[in-house]
Amino acid sequence: MAEIRVLTCDVFGTTVDWYTGVAAGVSEVFSELGLSVDAGAFANEWRAEYVPSMQRVRDGQREWANLDVLHAESLDLLLRRHGIADTVSPAARAMMVRAWHRLPAWSDTLPGLERLRTRYVIATLSNGGFALLTNLVKAERLPFDCVISAELVRAYKPDPRVYRAAADLLDVAPAEILMVAAHGRDLEAAAGVGLRTAFVERPREHGPYPGADRAADVTSDITVTSFLDLADHLGC
Amino acid sequence: MAEIRVLTCDVFGTTVDWYTGVAAGVSEVFSELGLSVDAGAFANEWRAEYVPSMQRVRDGQREWANLDVLHAESLDLLLRRHGIADTVSPAARAMMVRAWHRLPAWSDTLPGLERLRTRYVIATLSNGGFALLTNLVKAERLPFDCVISAELVRAYKPDPRVYRAAADLLDVAPAEILMVAAHGRDLEAAAGVGLRTAFVERPREHGPYPGADRAADVTSDITVTSFLDLADHLGC
Repeated sequence: MAEIRVLTCDVFGTTVDWYTGVAAGVSEVFSELGLSVDAGAFANEWRAEYVPSMQRVRDGQREWANLDVLHAESLDLLLRRHGIADTVSPAARAMMVRAWHRLPAWSDTLPGLERLRTRYVIATLSNGGFALLTNLVKAERLPFDCVISAELVRAYKPDPRVYRAAADLLDVAPAEILMVAAHGRDLEAAAGVGLRTAFVERPREHGPYPGADRAADVTSDITVTSFLDLADHLGC
Repeated sequence: MAEIRVLTCDVFGTTVDWYTGVAAGVSEVFSELGLSVDAGAFANEWRAEYVPSMQRVRDGQREWANLDVLHAESLDLLLRRHGIADTVSPAARAMMVRAWHRLPAWSDTLPGLERLRTRYVIATLSNGGFALLTNLVKAERLPFDCVISAELVRAYKPDPRVYRAAADLLDVAPAEILMVAAHGRDLEAAAGVGLRTAFVERPREHGPYPGADRAADVTSDITVTSFLDLADHLGC
């Protein structure tokens, strides 16, 4: 790990707790409308559309669209599926999509990043749009040195172009980057481009629901349980 | 100014004192080599090549190259002009180019930005490369919410594409952005794209040498003397 100069961090699930934040945003809108849909289950269903929605962009089935647009389309689909499309207005939908812009950081994220930033350049590397990531980082005062979004190359992870863009923009070799993520698929693709990898196990990524990647199933250079644990591992 | 949501800030001269930083970096290398060239005058000569070097990219006379490359080429030219090209090794030249990555912030920058960030999204918008800007911001702990570099669109200010890219990436209308700069040319181009403008007068931009833009010669929506003055004007 001696040659690492940059940490690129996945955001949803790794750095912030999307489940809690999105469930709260959904709950607020549904309560207001008197709908009795379970907000946590709904948040999980919404997230389940994430990979297939990006896959359609990757496959060229649809033109590039940033994550806000994909979130809005998945939401429309879900509201129809639940038979409540007529009840939720465009303004309420916009508020729900916006919930993804303000998500609570895991409790170890801020103190861990504060330690890590003393030795490394730390950047986001997420499929979230540039504005979304900027809003998230600002709201939680996360001390990232810069925001890097897949939107900058109009491709979605695990497309290799996203990882290469991070190396190009920060003017380092891929092997000088440690990709930090709670998802094996992300790390596998990063390793394919020559990045080093750190798996952060986030068993509560989906709240009380299963679905989080577990250490036993993921291949990575380092496995940790938090950003503080990562700082310990790297001697920061 | 009520509709402003984002402040995009020029960096060299506006946010950081390139003259002092570059003169110090040049002086260090020249002293080491026993060269008696005046470092401050040399820094100014180097900066004077900035606009013409970018102009060659804008005119299509040469392919896109980021500012590190342009700085390196201008430096080669200057060393030849001073008849010391043989004395300054490639490693010493690289160190001098690197001086542009670590420049002192003006004393009002950090406290001013801390106040401004409470109400606005604050971003860099500079011709410096993405890595250069990230290094600068990190070294001085400037609380920008994100780094936006002209490199992201491979064009240089005052090309309108650079200002439009900031609006697109941050998902705001041009009129919701206040461009903050110490240079009339930058503000004029920003206004041409629909941004609002704040001129920060930096009479010491070129150290003891003339060359700084003065308020009397610049057209802008607001004129201030520092980031603290700007925070006062905006009621932050």
